[in-house]
Amino acid sequence: MTDRDLTRTGAAALDAVSPLRDHRARFDLPDGVVYLDGNSLGPLPRGVAARMDQVVRREWGEGLIGSWNEADWLHLPRRVAARVAPLIGAQADEVHVGDSTSVLLFKTMTAAVRMRPGRRVVVLEPTTFPTDGYVATGLADLLDLELRWCDPDDPAAALDEDVALLALTHVDFRTGRMYDMGALTEAAHAVGALVQWDLCHSAGAVPVDLDVAGADLAVGCGYKYLNGGPGAPAFAYVAQRHQDAIRQPITGWMGHARPFDMERDYAPVPGIGRLASGTPGVLGLSALETALGVFADVDVSELRTVSLSLTDLFLDLVDARVGSRLEVVTPRTHGERGSQVSLRHPDAYGIVQALIARGVVGDFRTPDVARFGFAPLYVSHADVWDAVDHLVAVLDHEEHLDPAYAVRNLVT
Amino acid sequence: MTDRDLTRTGAAALDAVSPLRDHRARFDLPDGVVYLDGNSLGPLPRGVAARMDQVVRREWGEGLIGSWNEADWLHLPRRVAARVAPLIGAQADEVHVGDSTSVLLFKTMTAAVRMRPGRRVVVLEPTTFPTDGYVATGLADLLDLELRWCDPDDPAAALDEDVALLALTHVDFRTGRMYDMGALTEAAHAVGALVQWDLCHSAGAVPVDLDVAGADLAVGCGYKYLNGGPGAPAFAYVAQRHQDAIRQPITGWMGHARPFDMERDYAPVPGIGRLASGTPGVLGLSALETALGVFADVDVSELRTVSLSLTDLFLDLVDARVGSRLEVVTPRTHGERGSQVSLRHPDAYGIVQALIARGVVGDFRTPDVARFGFAPLYVSHADVWDAVDHLVAVLDHEEHLDPAYAVRNLVT
Repeated sequence: MTDRDLTRTGAAALDAVSPLRDHRARFDLPDGVVYLDGNSLGPLPRGVAARMDQVVRREWGEGLIGSWNEADWLHLPRRVAARVAPLIGAQADEVHVGDSTSVLLFKTMTAAVRMRPGRRVVVLEPTTFPTDGYVATGLADLLDLELRWCDPDDPAAALDEDVALLALTHVDFRTGRMYDMGALTEAAHAVGALVQWDLCHSAGAVPVDLDVAGADLAVGCGYKYLNGGPGAPAFAYVAQRHQDAIRQPITGWMGHARPFDMERDYAPVPGIGRLASGTPGVLGLSALETALGVFADVDVSELRTVSLSLTDLFLDLVDARVGSRLEVVTPRTHGERGSQVSLRHPDAYGIVQALIARGVVGDFRTPDVARFGFAPLYVSHADVWDAVDHLVAVLDHEEHLDPAYAVRNLVT
Repeated sequence: MTDRDLTRTGAAALDAVSPLRDHRARFDLPDGVVYLDGNSLGPLPRGVAARMDQVVRREWGEGLIGSWNEADWLHLPRRVAARVAPLIGAQADEVHVGDSTSVLLFKTMTAAVRMRPGRRVVVLEPTTFPTDGYVATGLADLLDLELRWCDPDDPAAALDEDVALLALTHVDFRTGRMYDMGALTEAAHAVGALVQWDLCHSAGAVPVDLDVAGADLAVGCGYKYLNGGPGAPAFAYVAQRHQDAIRQPITGWMGHARPFDMERDYAPVPGIGRLASGTPGVLGLSALETALGVFADVDVSELRTVSLSLTDLFLDLVDARVGSRLEVVTPRTHGERGSQVSLRHPDAYGIVQALIARGVVGDFRTPDVARFGFAPLYVSHADVWDAVDHLVAVLDHEEHLDPAYAVRNLVT
């Protein structure tokens, strides 16, 4: 039970004192939408459209090839990396930005197993986001490695001295469960293994402190809580102590020490830059660079405070008004909860669709999960209240049983 | 010697009868610029800026996550592939679009050597664009392959039955020399090797007929003659007969047969789609999709006719007015010439910079090459005349010896 004021007025009162109450204005959110899907695709930050127009018309259209120097496109990946770093507890020169999450997972996983010659096992968690497992499968196939699927409740139990890499997702995409990064990193190091963290569902929403945790490698997504736009470039982290040892496999010209000397032989640039392969995608990087501006004066601890306040309120309202009609699958313990709440129901797909029809955008994850992301920069406590109010109405009126929702559309 | 009319009036007369005379209006080229660097970064096609604004403000900003279905972002890579295919003599379902050129080179090279188990040699051409060699080096390091550098004048001489893959660039980035795709493909097949063609400097400017040549694999660039914008997504070709056999190494979720079922185990989608890895970069792909519209009603043979007319005129004018002051390094035989002409001079860097100051944009390639690209859609014969006229003036006035050009800037 809670002593929280569960009226809409109570929710609005929480907004009035939120340290992030003014930040919603940094986004171009459509009127009348409660957007709880920023963990799938973040909304459009204000300023990005104007920036894209500038990049396209002025830098590309007028500046042409000269913009590699004059608009400094060459260092755009480094500028973006410097904006990502404080959100994940890293130094700017520990972060690379580019490619997709899957490609970066491949690069860092390959680099990791090459740092542990003689060890052939990669430990993964079976409910991780599929691409992590798929990429590891492809790598295992290529290099004759063994994948070992751990118990999601106890990944450390799968560790032994055959393990080269423990690859875990910090916050689970389906349930919102968050792992203890420090403890699991320590457990892996205790057997001489490296750790790679997938931060797709944490960066920009929950505190991540890679350096303090002693993490080795990490990869994350630019288009969820970082709001970089659909298919935005991804980011990767390599701890400083590993940077001169890593050999990532896709040794393209942008990771060369002297790319414009056009030498025949490959020589990696010192440091994090060697993670680069091809020419950086300027349009996607420019959108992400501007998007990250919304975090400029935001302390990650404030994000966490507001995020927990939002998910606590959601859970309390679900308990009070939805009750046992849906099952809460997200941990209630703060230390184990990301910035989302997932609810299980056999008609979860219909529930999500009926809510979207009412302007409350969450998403469905197969087979039976309705997922609600609470991005603290633009989701308000009043949004939370409205979302649960609509959820109750959907259930009361059985809107989720509408035959139109029998056929499932693709939703990422 | 030539019987061509080498006056500016003569050049303008050629423009008046060019089948592509109206196509320059499809680009937003700045006034007063002769742009001969479209082989490095294509200019902005008209309509791209408006399309980007629509994608950002309406599809992302208003449509939010729903745009994966409603704006059909999911099939955007397939739509772009269908526009690339006719430019390279391929079927739409033989082309994949995404990632960077370097990443796609890695995917297709890896797939190729896995199709020839027991063969450990990759033949490369030592003056190829560096990233091709760097990527092959990284792959050789990963899979214990042997790189064999061939004689640029006779790549076939390096072939034997140890060779898994002959990886060649169709048109050389530095000299503009074009290989005979059919003959070299046949030579490789004669020893049981596969062929991969790098089309970065051919697609969109010279005829490429991968299917007719019997090519196996190809990779190309979206931001040169395809005008997709800085760092645009790249493309790859896999001949239909190989598609069910190929195993590319970066097995991300977008190459899965059922990505949204979120299965634990990887199962590649049948066909070319398995080349995909991560979530497609919608901003870059959208720009490229619109950019490719400029080719909608263009026959590749028309591109070639105009391209050769432009480079012939340039060569004639250089012969007549520049003489031995610069050395022509591009083959004069039509069958061996791409869509650029390169001139060698110890002060090539200064020459290029002095020309840029005069509004004639070419580029410098280390150590001593001034490179001029003639994209037939927007470069006119009058541009060619003006470019040579400025070149003569630069040399006559020794503008290239300006001390400001002693320090070389980075230019891609």
